[in-house]
Amino acid sequence: MGDPLRLGLIGFGNVGSGVVKALEENRELLAARCPRPLELRRIADIDLERRRPVTVDPKLLTTDAESVVRDPEIDVIIELIGGIEPARTLVETALAEGKSVVTANKAMLASHGPELLALAAEKGVRLLFEAAVGGGIPVVRALCESLAANKIERIQGILNGTSNYILSQMIYEEMSYEEALAEAQTLGYAEPDPTADVEGIDAANKIAILASLAFGFDIRYSDVYRVGISKLTRQDHKIAATEQYVIKPLATAEITEPGAVGISVQPAVVSISSPLATVGDVMNGIIIEGFPVGVVFLVGPGAGPEPTASAVLGDLMALSLLESDRAAPRPFLEIPVGKRPRITAECDCDGYWIRVFHRGGPDALAEIVCVLTEEHVPILKCIEEEREGDESGVSRVVVVLTDTALWEDIRCVVRRLGEAEWLEPDTSVLVMPRFD
Amino acid sequence: MGDPLRLGLIGFGNVGSGVVKALEENRELLAARCPRPLELRRIADIDLERRRPVTVDPKLLTTDAESVVRDPEIDVIIELIGGIEPARTLVETALAEGKSVVTANKAMLASHGPELLALAAEKGVRLLFEAAVGGGIPVVRALCESLAANKIERIQGILNGTSNYILSQMIYEEMSYEEALAEAQTLGYAEPDPTADVEGIDAANKIAILASLAFGFDIRYSDVYRVGISKLTRQDHKIAATEQYVIKPLATAEITEPGAVGISVQPAVVSISSPLATVGDVMNGIIIEGFPVGVVFLVGPGAGPEPTASAVLGDLMALSLLESDRAAPRPFLEIPVGKRPRITAECDCDGYWIRVFHRGGPDALAEIVCVLTEEHVPILKCIEEEREGDESGVSRVVVVLTDTALWEDIRCVVRRLGEAEWLEPDTSVLVMPRFD
Repeated sequence: MGDPLRLGLIGFGNVGSGVVKALEENRELLAARCPRPLELRRIADIDLERRRPVTVDPKLLTTDAESVVRDPEIDVIIELIGGIEPARTLVETALAEGKSVVTANKAMLASHGPELLALAAEKGVRLLFEAAVGGGIPVVRALCESLAANKIERIQGILNGTSNYILSQMIYEEMSYEEALAEAQTLGYAEPDPTADVEGIDAANKIAILASLAFGFDIRYSDVYRVGISKLTRQDHKIAATEQYVIKPLATAEITEPGAVGISVQPAVVSISSPLATVGDVMNGIIIEGFPVGVVFLVGPGAGPEPTASAVLGDLMALSLLESDRAAPRPFLEIPVGKRPRITAECDCDGYWIRVFHRGGPDALAEIVCVLTEEHVPILKCIEEEREGDESGVSRVVVVLTDTALWEDIRCVVRRLGEAEWLEPDTSVLVMPRFD
Repeated sequence: MGDPLRLGLIGFGNVGSGVVKALEENRELLAARCPRPLELRRIADIDLERRRPVTVDPKLLTTDAESVVRDPEIDVIIELIGGIEPARTLVETALAEGKSVVTANKAMLASHGPELLALAAEKGVRLLFEAAVGGGIPVVRALCESLAANKIERIQGILNGTSNYILSQMIYEEMSYEEALAEAQTLGYAEPDPTADVEGIDAANKIAILASLAFGFDIRYSDVYRVGISKLTRQDHKIAATEQYVIKPLATAEITEPGAVGISVQPAVVSISSPLATVGDVMNGIIIEGFPVGVVFLVGPGAGPEPTASAVLGDLMALSLLESDRAAPRPFLEIPVGKRPRITAECDCDGYWIRVFHRGGPDALAEIVCVLTEEHVPILKCIEEEREGDESGVSRVVVVLTDTALWEDIRCVVRRLGEAEWLEPDTSVLVMPRFD
């Protein structure tokens, strides 16, 4: 049995409590499996008074996170504060002090990951982050190890459980967006300010991280084309259902041509027979396509204290192996700072699902079709209905299903439709992803 | 760049050719990612004449596998012969010579894995086998690393693509078992002798390997309760479909009580809304349940040269990291030779689906029900129909859906039904797995 691996936890909220609880409950198993025993030595949080589902020795607790990351008697920092600052500065300090760091912080990584990874490499320590994407789904390590020999062509999936839950409630319980959001908040799936989840910010952070690893480029949060789910109506879901589709919050990253990456988070219209349609409730699901593996599909709980604890502890166990030998070589996949691809919002899809509201009378549909035709967008099907919830009875909803089309042409269509006076401004474009 | 990792391949069939092809096609990516470059130095096969989809320098080829495993200029052996002998002896020799081994050989591992792993540990080398279970699905490494902190409670899944394909064709194309098998053989999914696939031998090898890793016990192929798919009829699938079920080839391993493992491969009746029902064609799907992760579900191509090559190359890359330092500590999960659990065929399921054929006249159903009742097996539903394909018109089929019941009681029911003269001997018992 080696010397203990002395852990300092910063951030003792729900996820931090989950880690402490799992360390306790699986103590025997961890002791048997870890070459260096995991010992929690210090815990920092700004709020030491709140009630928590675990009890710890009060001597471990402090409000001074900086003293923990600088403590020479701590070997590894577990960062579970979330958000960019002060997390980034604390992690930077820890790495600079020669401590390895395990983090679940997707926002920090998607904005500053490449620099932090470079600092870790320079200092001969590790920055591990299985918990930052997909919660308990072993996707980061799968990409970096089991699938490391693959030329990854595409990663596509549902990376935000909250928005998946809201859309699932709208589809299967026929709730409005507002009702579904309120329920998600009641159940603790959504924050009081739900922006990061429903506007795709959380998923954009995650897909940027996965894309960087898979493609070996420096890709950041700000590169991601992002559309939220808050504009979708119950009627959108009903029309999709009659066409055998469901609307899912989809993150996509793919190599569109050598050196170019298409990366987006947006609601997508997904065939009910596709694997992603089966990922309901708050679950996440990730499809990885590459050569030689073909397609693999990973599903699991994308958030929550327990699944996240599984990922954090897996990383700590890896450190307990690696830290027995500081000179151990670096991982296969790294994110080279500044090695930038060309970035687009393009996505290799079967077509687009364009929904507009109009008050334009009987010619309106023909005029919409005309715009698409002029922009070379091939149309497969048009659906026109009265708009639900419109008491005047004059507003109508049109859905156009297109064949494959250039993203540029779709943008032109949206711009021209946005200029038409008889159309309401909120045109929604949903991709219809291809599943081979 | 370190010294090359000199590879010796034994077994240059379909999978071996897939590995050679992927080494070639992803050469650049592998060179960039591996601390020690992967260099294929020798290839052994009994048949050097057959046509292969790749061309190699003839100087690499030999029919003498033993000379390869003993070659001091080879660092790592890739074993893709399959079957127990001569693979086991060659792998043993390679490990004894101080070479690490990467293998896809489930039969060898499920019968001799613990001893071979112990030998590898003794010699300070590695025996890696991501490719042995689930083809390209990163399940072995997920269990051993990302999910290593979990107390695994159950592993359940479809681990044999051939039998999944045959059942899928019976369900969706309404083929007979014989037609579906013939098609699988034409497509190369089934061997001329399909026994290993359709009788559950292949899946039993795989679930024994996963159970050993997940539960830390020495569990072998011979421990697995095994029922094949060859007795299922088209009518079984039709009756299942009317009840909103599909029949899937299911492998299960679970901790039934401390120190006891229930492990089985058998056709199971699965709700069409369960995740495993979506795993069609030749795909594999594996559900892992544990604390703290909850449930994760991994899906992908379970066989074939390319997915298997992905797994083999992932293991070779891991060696290229590890072999830079022979003293690197051992992996978390090991299989302790001789640490045996109590083994049962029990499975925590919602109930059983018992199908019998009878010629017993109008009282037969009542007599069947009576047997179940006397054996304390609670009945949820009985279905009786004319037996399809019976020209005499007197044979009938009865399906009984039970509530949860003891496996022992089910065995008594099957034994007693087997003794009834008016019943045909081929009673089928299918489990109805629980998905939480």
